[in-house]
Amino acid sequence: TSYCKHLHTPKKNALLIIADDGGFEMGTYRNKICQTPNLDGLGKKSLIFNNAYTSVSSCSPSRSAILTGLPIHQNGMYGLHQGVHHFNSFDNIKSLPGILAEHGIRTGIIGKKHVGPSKVYPFSFAETEENNSILQVGRNITKIKLLVQEFLTQNSSDPFFLYVAFHDPHRCGHINPEYGNFCEKFGNGEPGMGLIEDWHPIYYEPNQVQLPYFVQDTPAARQDVAAQYTTISRLDQGVGLVLQELKAAGFENNTLIIYSSDNGIPFPSGRTNLYDPGMAEPMLISSPRPEDRHNEVTYSMTSLLDIVPTLLDWFKIPYPHENEIKPILTGKSLLPLLVKEPAHDTGAVFASHSHHEITMYYPMRAVRTKRYKLIHNINYKMPFPIDQDFYISPSFQDLLNRTRSKQPLNWYKTLKSYYYRDEWELYDLKRDADEVNNVAFKPAYKDVFLELKTKLNEWQKATADPWLCAPGGVLEASGSFKKHPQCLPLDNF
Amino acid sequence: TSYCKHLHTPKKNALLIIADDGGFEMGTYRNKICQTPNLDGLGKKSLIFNNAYTSVSSCSPSRSAILTGLPIHQNGMYGLHQGVHHFNSFDNIKSLPGILAEHGIRTGIIGKKHVGPSKVYPFSFAETEENNSILQVGRNITKIKLLVQEFLTQNSSDPFFLYVAFHDPHRCGHINPEYGNFCEKFGNGEPGMGLIEDWHPIYYEPNQVQLPYFVQDTPAARQDVAAQYTTISRLDQGVGLVLQELKAAGFENNTLIIYSSDNGIPFPSGRTNLYDPGMAEPMLISSPRPEDRHNEVTYSMTSLLDIVPTLLDWFKIPYPHENEIKPILTGKSLLPLLVKEPAHDTGAVFASHSHHEITMYYPMRAVRTKRYKLIHNINYKMPFPIDQDFYISPSFQDLLNRTRSKQPLNWYKTLKSYYYRDEWELYDLKRDADEVNNVAFKPAYKDVFLELKTKLNEWQKATADPWLCAPGGVLEASGSFKKHPQCLPLDNF
Ligand SMILES: [Ca+2]
Ligand SMILES: [Ca+2]
Ligand SMILES: [Mg+2]
Ligand SMILES: [Mg+2]
Repeated sequence: TSYCKHLHTPKKNALLIIADDGGFEMGTYRNKICQTPNLDGLGKKSLIFNNAYTSVSSCSPSRSAILTGLPIHQNGMYGLHQGVHHFNSFDNIKSLPGILAEHGIRTGIIGKKHVGPSKVYPFSFAETEENNSILQVGRNITKIKLLVQEFLTQNSSDPFFLYVAFHDPHRCGHINPEYGNFCEKFGNGEPGMGLIEDWHPIYYEPNQVQLPYFVQDTPAARQDVAAQYTTISRLDQGVGLVLQELKAAGFENNTLIIYSSDNGIPFPSGRTNLYDPGMAEPMLISSPRPEDRHNEVTYSMTSLLDIVPTLLDWFKIPYPHENEIKPILTGKSLLPLLVKEPAHDTGAVFASHSHHEITMYYPMRAVRTKRYKLIHNINYKMPFPIDQDFYISPSFQDLLNRTRSKQPLNWYKTLKSYYYRDEWELYDLKRDADEVNNVAFKPAYKDVFLELKTKLNEWQKATADPWLCAPGGVLEASGSFKKHPQCLPLDNF
Repeated sequence: TSYCKHLHTPKKNALLIIADDGGFEMGTYRNKICQTPNLDGLGKKSLIFNNAYTSVSSCSPSRSAILTGLPIHQNGMYGLHQGVHHFNSFDNIKSLPGILAEHGIRTGIIGKKHVGPSKVYPFSFAETEENNSILQVGRNITKIKLLVQEFLTQNSSDPFFLYVAFHDPHRCGHINPEYGNFCEKFGNGEPGMGLIEDWHPIYYEPNQVQLPYFVQDTPAARQDVAAQYTTISRLDQGVGLVLQELKAAGFENNTLIIYSSDNGIPFPSGRTNLYDPGMAEPMLISSPRPEDRHNEVTYSMTSLLDIVPTLLDWFKIPYPHENEIKPILTGKSLLPLLVKEPAHDTGAVFASHSHHEITMYYPMRAVRTKRYKLIHNINYKMPFPIDQDFYISPSFQDLLNRTRSKQPLNWYKTLKSYYYRDEWELYDLKRDADEVNNVAFKPAYKDVFLELKTKLNEWQKATADPWLCAPGGVLEASGSFKKHPQCLPLDNF
């Protein structure tokens, strides 16, 4: 019986699986074309989240937020970590591997790390891009399987936290175009592609794919999505191998499994945006406790900032405050949700974006409830920036070329409307799920606008946001303002 | 004779003295009011630079550029180092203390460091804000004197590089308003102010001060400048004490002394700007070689990026290339200039600014020749940002209040013209030294504009500027663009 199982397996472990730029291309989320039997199988043993959102739609920023429970403006990872971007969390920030290690939990990361500095993210077992090829530890599912095996069979008496960070289904054309736009050929056994032993590649017909509403319906975009599907199917097979290793090592009955993705898919309105295609994430939580909900759906408003409180709750470890008031966690444990859907959920989730690439300054703050989303675009007079990776993608090039040659875009926006955004965007998602009609200044929405603006402002204050007063004011918080920080007006608009 | 002196003192040392936000308020530069006998005395033994310019008018960025010889976009210090700004140079960057230490030169810093990470700036003797109160090591000239003494009398057989980084005459009102707007009361012996033993405070009449053309002529601004003068006079007395210690320790005849400032004075168009009030710096180089020029003036175009090549030349140490092509130094040794003014100087200096505070994204690139200056404002559609320190200054508050109440500003600009700048600004400095008539798109200046734009672009390429293509294009430099980086158009304007 389950009671006996608990007696014999009191150790509690956690496995966090994060896809890189993954979306809802899986059976669990009603995609009928992209084949994801392993994720769907996990879904059947999970609570399936229909309202999970990242706090930032950018790789390093999101990973820092997932691991610290703090939005980027509170942890310091304002943009990408690698190369000239060079963002790092503040030195005094506590993250999951650090906190858990202090309580005797063994921590491991396999795959894409993409955060720093090292002492803020001190995994004891680490096979990442820092000591491997990212293609090997992030996309070679056989290599990943073996590393998971190695971690699980080492030192197996301690409870563990294992973070498997796939690099699939991230785009590939920017760095390694030889493997295809999504690395869909990497390891497929063709000449020069190498061989991933455990992978059974699945290729999709461009005509077959289920185009999301935010991707234009053109041959170029369809082909791009087809390549993405192939890489998602590799991710799915990788997830299957990881779960198999977990079972083989005997941890199936005492390990909490969380599956999600760091940010939106790399298509227009997706990654780097706070529209829903950028912000909404798949999330499955599979609890080993038989009494928890399985194969059920929750609509509760959930943030990836909730992962830290959830795992601390799971391990029964308090967040270290060290006699400081700040930083505070604004997320919440999701374990109660695994037991029971709340009768009334009036929750909201928040998002905070700043740079992505160092040159891509476009700070945004957002609050999303079930019904509404409010976005504050702080650098709104400048065009929305496009990253090097997305720029050369077939989908974006297609939008550029069609705009230049005045062909139909078959898209729900124009490039101009995509580049130039209002300072405040308010969407009534019940009537306008695609976020195309900004009602921020419609008289009928005046109260909603003010209410959400206040909510967002309160969250920014609670999380010590340096951008609290931007762009129309200066935040004064030291000297004579130390006890009473204030936004003082610049009279600059 | 000087020949004999050289035989007896073959050791070569260097002393770099940097003022914090200091300007031309000294007798050497024809200010008749602000009393700076010690700097003027140093000037008499120096080559006096009349065309020295910082590559960035912001504290940490400029200090990183001074110590690495690389502009901010090449060394990674895109903005301020402290607190939430959290900028750091790239881990692989070489700086003066690191390079010199590898060649057996003892290195010391006393005062404001404001750069990181530690391993990039490894001074062996370090008394800075990292292990002291910045007021003590940066403004208490008695403390500074004693630290200099300590450094100079330690281990005195090795050649040395000593960097004395005063915090005077930086503003004080933002952090420590209790000491006055420029810390002009700090250590003056009045109740609660503490006592700096060696300091003889000089106070100035607001009516007396020589207002620079870029500061409005109002009582508030005059009072602000008067306080600045007091702090400059303290800096001057500090410089006197440092030079006295150098002499007392017997290093007067084998030490190269450089005096300059990190950035423009904290007044409108000064610090954080690339107009001349932000970019032009005082610079004195006092050589112990009797054959070098003393009490002479040079008009040669000089950059603070020249300090690293100059000191490496002085110590006869090559810049470490480590089989890499990048980074390269674009500055030049100033030692030949100490011997002889070039017959024809067609030089240009370059500047690169990005953030200052993390929220103050306003990247600018500039090239300045003797005759012209071209500025590229990359985030030009947004208002020019104002920092927390300058915002609460009496001078800026006065501009805000006068604008609001529609009083005369007695200023050469309006707040609106200060906030909103053209993407390209070209000034013919011969006709328009105050940089108020933008001639970038005047037909008569078409050739000059193109020539300078090309020059600037070449420098950006040579220094691997991530902003090379901003804001209208995307820089593609990896994958299929690795061998031939390109700016690809966004069609976003
Ligand atoms: Ca990602
Ligand atoms: Ca400064
Ligand atoms: Mg740090
Ligand atoms: Mg680094």
